[in-house]
Amino acid sequence: MATGVDRERSAARIEREIETLSRPDFTTSSEAIRRYAYTPEYRRTLDHFAAALGELGFTVTEDPVGTLVARNRAPGEPVFGVGSHCDSNRNGGRYDGTMGVVTALEVCRLNEEHGLGLPLQLVSFLEEEGSGFGQMLLGSRIMLERVTDDDLRERFRSLDDGRSFWEHAEAAGYAPERWRESAHVLDDLVGWIEMHIEQARVLQDTGKRIGVVNAIAGYVHADVHVQGRGDHAGATPMSLRLDPTTVLAETVLELERLATGAGHGTVGTVGEIEVDPGLINAIAASVRFSLDIRGPVEDAYRGVAREIGAFVEQAAAARGMNAEYRERQTIPPTPMDDRIVAALETAAQATGEPYRRMHSGAAHDTMCVAERVPSAMVFVPCKDGVSHHPAEDASPADAALAAEIILEAIATLV
Amino acid sequence: MATGVDRERSAARIEREIETLSRPDFTTSSEAIRRYAYTPEYRRTLDHFAAALGELGFTVTEDPVGTLVARNRAPGEPVFGVGSHCDSNRNGGRYDGTMGVVTALEVCRLNEEHGLGLPLQLVSFLEEEGSGFGQMLLGSRIMLERVTDDDLRERFRSLDDGRSFWEHAEAAGYAPERWRESAHVLDDLVGWIEMHIEQARVLQDTGKRIGVVNAIAGYVHADVHVQGRGDHAGATPMSLRLDPTTVLAETVLELERLATGAGHGTVGTVGEIEVDPGLINAIAASVRFSLDIRGPVEDAYRGVAREIGAFVEQAAAARGMNAEYRERQTIPPTPMDDRIVAALETAAQATGEPYRRMHSGAAHDTMCVAERVPSAMVFVPCKDGVSHHPAEDASPADAALAAEIILEAIATLV
Repeated sequence: MATGVDRERSAARIEREIETLSRPDFTTSSEAIRRYAYTPEYRRTLDHFAAALGELGFTVTEDPVGTLVARNRAPGEPVFGVGSHCDSNRNGGRYDGTMGVVTALEVCRLNEEHGLGLPLQLVSFLEEEGSGFGQMLLGSRIMLERVTDDDLRERFRSLDDGRSFWEHAEAAGYAPERWRESAHVLDDLVGWIEMHIEQARVLQDTGKRIGVVNAIAGYVHADVHVQGRGDHAGATPMSLRLDPTTVLAETVLELERLATGAGHGTVGTVGEIEVDPGLINAIAASVRFSLDIRGPVEDAYRGVAREIGAFVEQAAAARGMNAEYRERQTIPPTPMDDRIVAALETAAQATGEPYRRMHSGAAHDTMCVAERVPSAMVFVPCKDGVSHHPAEDASPADAALAAEIILEAIATLV
Repeated sequence: MATGVDRERSAARIEREIETLSRPDFTTSSEAIRRYAYTPEYRRTLDHFAAALGELGFTVTEDPVGTLVARNRAPGEPVFGVGSHCDSNRNGGRYDGTMGVVTALEVCRLNEEHGLGLPLQLVSFLEEEGSGFGQMLLGSRIMLERVTDDDLRERFRSLDDGRSFWEHAEAAGYAPERWRESAHVLDDLVGWIEMHIEQARVLQDTGKRIGVVNAIAGYVHADVHVQGRGDHAGATPMSLRLDPTTVLAETVLELERLATGAGHGTVGTVGEIEVDPGLINAIAASVRFSLDIRGPVEDAYRGVAREIGAFVEQAAAARGMNAEYRERQTIPPTPMDDRIVAALETAAQATGEPYRRMHSGAAHDTMCVAERVPSAMVFVPCKDGVSHHPAEDASPADAALAAEIILEAIATLV
């Protein structure tokens, strides 16, 4: 198939949608894009997409908690899924999530415009960023029943007013007591493709316009606590110190070495460091720091986690101190579907534009979807890798290219 | 001379004084010793010492801001100074400062008891710890005119109520407008010896009961700011990172290497570490950390400061980042008077008890006194090096030994 897509027209439409959804009606902050579940601004955003999809002849519904679902086939008929999320983080930009839904809409528009007749279902997930209730991937986790009744009734509470998710969902006119029916959104899907900005700089720095995602990284989140001895910084000779910052230092460098050596896209980061008491003239009594160790290949990143856990204990012991490594959370990697990845690659290749296979280091709703539906993702570059910030920037022309590739891929898959 | 001091009686008296000054009347907190200028508890403490010294026939006065001065000779006659401070830090113990004044009182008592007739002046400095106005060594800095009128009238403000030092001093019945007359406290001193707990573990760990201090360390306080790039911890490959925590890590280890190598008691500490943004899943955008580099030998510790300043810039540059080293404050070392140190060593040797020459890594009022008066200090061990904490512990028997040594030394010096 060669659709002969007018990429400039696609890019202009995508740019206009992004522009529209950046206006004051669609964000609760004038300094950033801030949009989350059950606010009037979020409601207007869903209505905007619903209207556009209605014009294309799609039937638009919402699941019992507010995930938007629009399809051009009757229930029970097989459809191919496209979409992302249109909520933002609290200090967000215009592109994270929203450009994925806008691009999915463009796929639907091109399908109509070119009379392709592909069976499509667009999904815009609720609360991917967790800005409303501090719970990431909430809509897709509800869909996969990775939450409990108690979570929704009691534990998940609004960051604004402390009221429960349940109360807020009811107040917004939803039926949270029917949340398990959300699972049916995925019933008819024969495949799923989510487009998203990359949130890193690999595409930009390697000069690619498209990333075909073949896996979403799993990760280990851990904490290390090193117990030293809080002595006077001036009065304690070097030879009598139990300074836990030295173990921190050795661990930061060892983690860098291990992650680099592990290959397979494995990465490791020390992002949080807390020194107690944290005074210029006091040797630290203890240090706590976090480890974020990820990658698409479980053996590789779990190996790094295991080795660094052993390392911190040995490094502390070698200096007469005690260190404790404790895992906070672990998530396995999510492989993407080979057939969809191959179809996307073929379509990307056909455009003649530079693309690369890559994994996603960040988490996405597609991690949940992939558990039930053959799935893949498409990335487009974002400027300097910046996301979750008003300075976030991405190119509508790249998104238009992604829309074309997704459309072509689906055409070969259904 | 051999005074034939009854050390047990001395120790018992010292213990009783420490015990008394730990009672609720003498501390504003029931959880810790908390005693600072112009509180009723501080007033009672000065009154307690004044009464005890009055009983010995000393004339007790206070300088215009509240430093206690007691002497057994008329103004203008030469006297030998002994003393310390009796304020505490806000979460303090019983010994820091107070045991030095109590030991000086014991020197005066022994002088009387044994009819030695040594000319003595006891001084208890105001606000050594800075608990009242956030200004360390305040009494001795006033005495040395290392403050300005504006500092006292405007800049130095109560940590409790924000009112100026000046207002508080006036309200307590002092005459802050005559603060420059405080300098006269040192006019008649032919020498000065301050006894203090060590605030580190050198004496304990080397099995010594007495430290004869031959220098007080000078220091460099500096800040390092490393500017990296705040990328997504999951999505940014190891090879594309500008992670400033790696420069922190290299600097911590290099500082340890340099300080250890410099010898001469040089020490170096990274006590404050601030990571921005400090999230588990974000590579730090920047890191700030403090450097405390000290020692009794200026060339040695200033050399370390110079080398680490150059190191951080090179280490950052080697990784494509930028680092800035900026000195916050520098204080030169204070050598003690050779003749007084020798007299103390001779007296210590004569007791047959284990002692060592050492420098002080911590700052003391004696740093100021030594600018005008030949000075030295005597240290006694404190348990596990703990100070500035309710768990602070030290031995009255060691203090009694110190009193005897100081008395013997003064006897050979005047």
